[in-house]
Amino acid sequence: MLIKHVVMSYRLTSLSSSNSHTLLNKAVLRRQLFLIRALAGDTELSNRKMAQQIEDVNAKVLEADAEHILRAITPSLDPNRHKGQAGKIAVVGGCREYTGAPYFSAISALKIGADLSHVFCTEDAAPVIKSYSPELIVHPVLQESYSVREEDKESISRKVLAEVDKWMERFDCLVVGPGLGRDPFLMECVSEIMKHAKDAKVPIVVDGDGLFLVTNCLDLVSDYPLAVLTPNVNEYKRLVQKVLKCEVNDEEAAEQLISLSKGIGGVTILRKGKFDFISDGTTVHSVSVYGSPRRCGGQGDILSGSVALFLSWARQYLSAADGNLNIKPVNPTVLGCIAGSVLMRKAASLAFCNKKRSTLTTDIIEYLGESLEDMAPANSYQDTN
Amino acid sequence: MLIKHVVMSYRLTSLSSSNSHTLLNKAVLRRQLFLIRALAGDTELSNRKMAQQIEDVNAKVLEADAEHILRAITPSLDPNRHKGQAGKIAVVGGCREYTGAPYFSAISALKIGADLSHVFCTEDAAPVIKSYSPELIVHPVLQESYSVREEDKESISRKVLAEVDKWMERFDCLVVGPGLGRDPFLMECVSEIMKHAKDAKVPIVVDGDGLFLVTNCLDLVSDYPLAVLTPNVNEYKRLVQKVLKCEVNDEEAAEQLISLSKGIGGVTILRKGKFDFISDGTTVHSVSVYGSPRRCGGQGDILSGSVALFLSWARQYLSAADGNLNIKPVNPTVLGCIAGSVLMRKAASLAFCNKKRSTLTTDIIEYLGESLEDMAPANSYQDTN
Repeated sequence: MLIKHVVMSYRLTSLSSSNSHTLLNKAVLRRQLFLIRALAGDTELSNRKMAQQIEDVNAKVLEADAEHILRAITPSLDPNRHKGQAGKIAVVGGCREYTGAPYFSAISALKIGADLSHVFCTEDAAPVIKSYSPELIVHPVLQESYSVREEDKESISRKVLAEVDKWMERFDCLVVGPGLGRDPFLMECVSEIMKHAKDAKVPIVVDGDGLFLVTNCLDLVSDYPLAVLTPNVNEYKRLVQKVLKCEVNDEEAAEQLISLSKGIGGVTILRKGKFDFISDGTTVHSVSVYGSPRRCGGQGDILSGSVALFLSWARQYLSAADGNLNIKPVNPTVLGCIAGSVLMRKAASLAFCNKKRSTLTTDIIEYLGESLEDMAPANSYQDTN
Repeated sequence: MLIKHVVMSYRLTSLSSSNSHTLLNKAVLRRQLFLIRALAGDTELSNRKMAQQIEDVNAKVLEADAEHILRAITPSLDPNRHKGQAGKIAVVGGCREYTGAPYFSAISALKIGADLSHVFCTEDAAPVIKSYSPELIVHPVLQESYSVREEDKESISRKVLAEVDKWMERFDCLVVGPGLGRDPFLMECVSEIMKHAKDAKVPIVVDGDGLFLVTNCLDLVSDYPLAVLTPNVNEYKRLVQKVLKCEVNDEEAAEQLISLSKGIGGVTILRKGKFDFISDGTTVHSVSVYGSPRRCGGQGDILSGSVALFLSWARQYLSAADGNLNIKPVNPTVLGCIAGSVLMRKAASLAFCNKKRSTLTTDIIEYLGESLEDMAPANSYQDTN
């Protein structure tokens, strides 16, 4: 059972040094005990056994003080800033078959507070994605094999890349994968886009079909510290098989996640599930805030857009703090994952309270703002001045 | 008059054995007496005559304990489950002319609690259906005669089938017909899709133009116990004419419905009307919960999507119960029809209370969640633990 080895640590010394977040955070402790009981059953574990297990796994998985992190990295709103400074995100995805996923990802970034959100998709997908919202900037630049002749592929590929390159350096983060599909020609072009993003040091969040691409060509992200992979159960399984040449082992979940991250050169991995586990190959952080029991498609897309924006904000925060920090960890990709995860869970929880079984992804997106406000109030310029 | 033979039975022994649902369910009995009086007029029937009629038709039509059935088969929400486990539905329909119907059907399944809802439609219809909602996965794979040259038909037909086959085994149920149109080439392709669904043992709910197809080619569903037909007045009339070679006879409505179902090898038929009558060739169950007097187009599409999802849930429920049941009947297609019917009626009733003459299908869809919550509260994980 997962509980045997992946129990949240009691010690949160490495997570927070501020007075408002005591070393032994009682609320977190209570939640951890609840989780332990929920996972293992009260009768299964004597207190002695539980203490032993906690001793065993201490420091393997740290329950992130996610709300504190989210609050710290979310920039204050300042009327002196201009358009773009709060974040410019681009989603690479959207093909003839899938149009909802890139929309969910891009609009989520906007609803959390990004200034601009772009989508690079196929020509077929563009009018549909545009129709979901006038807020998005949608570029119909990608092409799928069925619309391209063999002899034109090279020139079209060059053209696609030139179109994306025009924008690349303006982006704070790229999300690759939502609704990308698996067309071979499209995949080739997107591989090139990822290489250019890496060269330009633009962070990349990889989800959905982007993970299919990356699993088959690990070089696209390996050794790139600004890459984040956000696999679900099946995607994680395929990654483990490919990189570690073994099956997923929940008895050694923390160690395996660390090995997987190390195996891809220290990229950050957010393993989605009942609890989210995040690692960059050094430690494992968990976010276990309760979300929702609904598993409607599209929730992963909200997360990818959220992680992309928070990651950008974390980089801004770390760069402005200049070493004077009151949060740990200090890897912006890990901070982005933690903040994205807790926000997504809070919004899903509020949406579910309201809509119950009827909850859909669009309902969750509608609660992103309220959830963020609960954790990091906007306090307008007028209020604070 | 229908009342002469199709009166709801007083005996519900076969429907429920739980204490909370007594053998002589008083609420149902009151409703039945009300219906009898409403149909026949108080003055027409002496108590003696009424008793005689009840004696005559006893056990022919059983008023389903629909809410109990809906509650039993609706799965509890469990955070340990992952995407897809609460249901994956596909609608085959949507052409140049009709785009609303497949949307209504597919979105209804999602709003009741399915995890994923697909639509397979023509290339023209796809962008429009996609634009109604980013939650649906819309495949632009079907083609109509006007866009296909005679010599290409065979290869295109094979391609369409290959596209659908890629997904077939992932689906818990197929809905065939909403907004399908009657283009001959399209009908040929859809016939092949139905054959493949049958081979793969994927349940099929047939409505709208799908019923036109099936009425002309009964082999597509005959002897397939996982097929459900949901005819309205006219579609039922054509089915009776084709299968029983006679006209609809409301004096013998229950017997005729049973004969019709038997005549198609025991497929389940949901005869829509003021009351819904459901039979798989053995008994007839009725759902007479009051819905709405509005007859705006599209309500049948909500029903087909709902039946598809409830049918899938009923199969999961029956398989998990392993014979240890407290509901009858035990045919999942009949259970799905009963639950779909009562939910649709409840939602229509709430929508009408709110919107009156202005009630449209989208308004009814908005009440699916609340109606389901009334009958089968979601009780989040936190509540139950």
